[in-house]
Amino acid sequence: MRFARLAPPDQDRPPFYARLEGAAALVLDRAPWLGGTTTGESVAWVDLDLACPVEPTKILCVGRNYAAHARELGNDIPKEPLLFLKPPSSLLGPLQTIVLPPDSQRVEHEAELGVVIGRRCRNVSPEDALAHVFGYTCLGDITARDLQRKDVQFTRGKGFDTFCPVGPWIETALDPAQLRIRATVNGKLRQDGPTSQMIWGVPALIAAMSRVMTLEPGDILATGTPEGVGPLVDGDELVIEIMGEGDRAPGIGALRVSVA
Amino acid sequence: MRFARLAPPDQDRPPFYARLEGAAALVLDRAPWLGGTTTGESVAWVDLDLACPVEPTKILCVGRNYAAHARELGNDIPKEPLLFLKPPSSLLGPLQTIVLPPDSQRVEHEAELGVVIGRRCRNVSPEDALAHVFGYTCLGDITARDLQRKDVQFTRGKGFDTFCPVGPWIETALDPAQLRIRATVNGKLRQDGPTSQMIWGVPALIAAMSRVMTLEPGDILATGTPEGVGPLVDGDELVIEIMGEGDRAPGIGALRVSVA
Repeated sequence: MRFARLAPPDQDRPPFYARLEGAAALVLDRAPWLGGTTTGESVAWVDLDLACPVEPTKILCVGRNYAAHARELGNDIPKEPLLFLKPPSSLLGPLQTIVLPPDSQRVEHEAELGVVIGRRCRNVSPEDALAHVFGYTCLGDITARDLQRKDVQFTRGKGFDTFCPVGPWIETALDPAQLRIRATVNGKLRQDGPTSQMIWGVPALIAAMSRVMTLEPGDILATGTPEGVGPLVDGDELVIEIMGEGDRAPGIGALRVSVA
Repeated sequence: MRFARLAPPDQDRPPFYARLEGAAALVLDRAPWLGGTTTGESVAWVDLDLACPVEPTKILCVGRNYAAHARELGNDIPKEPLLFLKPPSSLLGPLQTIVLPPDSQRVEHEAELGVVIGRRCRNVSPEDALAHVFGYTCLGDITARDLQRKDVQFTRGKGFDTFCPVGPWIETALDPAQLRIRATVNGKLRQDGPTSQMIWGVPALIAAMSRVMTLEPGDILATGTPEGVGPLVDGDELVIEIMGEGDRAPGIGALRVSVA
């Protein structure tokens, strides 16, 4: 099933969650991972109505989770998942604009599979991990590469407002190891990698992350980026697309944002 | 004025915000930084009722903000504030227990001044920064030092559940440069430093942080720890106290937590 958060720009109504069925949005009374159910209201929706589909208490990320990407930045492959956080203030919705900060001369895209937590968990085993997932979405771990290198800590380089585009919606019935992540900039393919090449797959990541901190419903995990990261400049159009890998495997769709 | 969040353990009532006047708690209808006003209800409160006084969207911290502490860990003084995040899942209230994780053999206390944001801000100047502060509290940046060194990124070492005790309440009418931070473990003084020795004072920190990310009402900033950090072991009682520096300067009070 496909879930979105809608904020129709021409309506005086707070953003609301909905289950999408084709062109119809079945309105929910709250976030689906908080037990939201359909109110009975159905509305027509268009792409411009899509807001960032999550409101997490945290955005927990892993670095260097694809060997080829670790190598392209000259890094070793860590022996354990390398965790870091992005602030909720960095979230951005579909069709919105990544704002280049004046403090950086080198902002790059990192296209990733986002995992939305459905049930609170702590110290969950890899075997039980996927039972705590609500669904999957496209996520951009936008990074000021020069500041990331200078600070060593990733917080500033990855923490600017608008540096975490997420969307366009959340798909629930997917195999996270049977997907392919693509990033295109102005129509040119930059990143293209299968999620099966993650060093730590989604179950192992959730186990490692929940060994440190409680994961809350609605929290979003960023699972690392395949090789091919590159610069974004004013006027660019970035598309992060996640499709099914293999015959008829379902995918997610395409998240489109601009850069200014 | 003094504000707290109360969760009386013997009452079937969700935690609520209140303004404290001596032994009386004047109940608020919501968090004071979200415009909460008194409901007219006044209740008696005791120490055991005090919950973590904040529910932030982020906990934004600075490392190495006291020269003597940077030196004691063998670090250079950074040229810009070194930012990092702790997850909201790490928050802990007064009289609660820091849980030592099995993955670390060396957990340490870092006593800090916590700053609670009162008004949303982005790109605020040092001159205007303090107008966006709601108040001040005591904060522990508990750190698994071995994991912090091993990972380089601070997220795991500083991100475990219970690793961010905050409280006992928030004081609004203080000068953040006229305070003294003390940490005692089992009654022995471990840390004792004046906030006037911060490399970047609170106004400069808020300016630097808000240059990266929007600060939201209720967000909490951790402003760095003076020298004297040291280990915590099972059974320890940690007290973080912030008092006024100088004649009759007002302080905050003492945050007490245990370790297990």
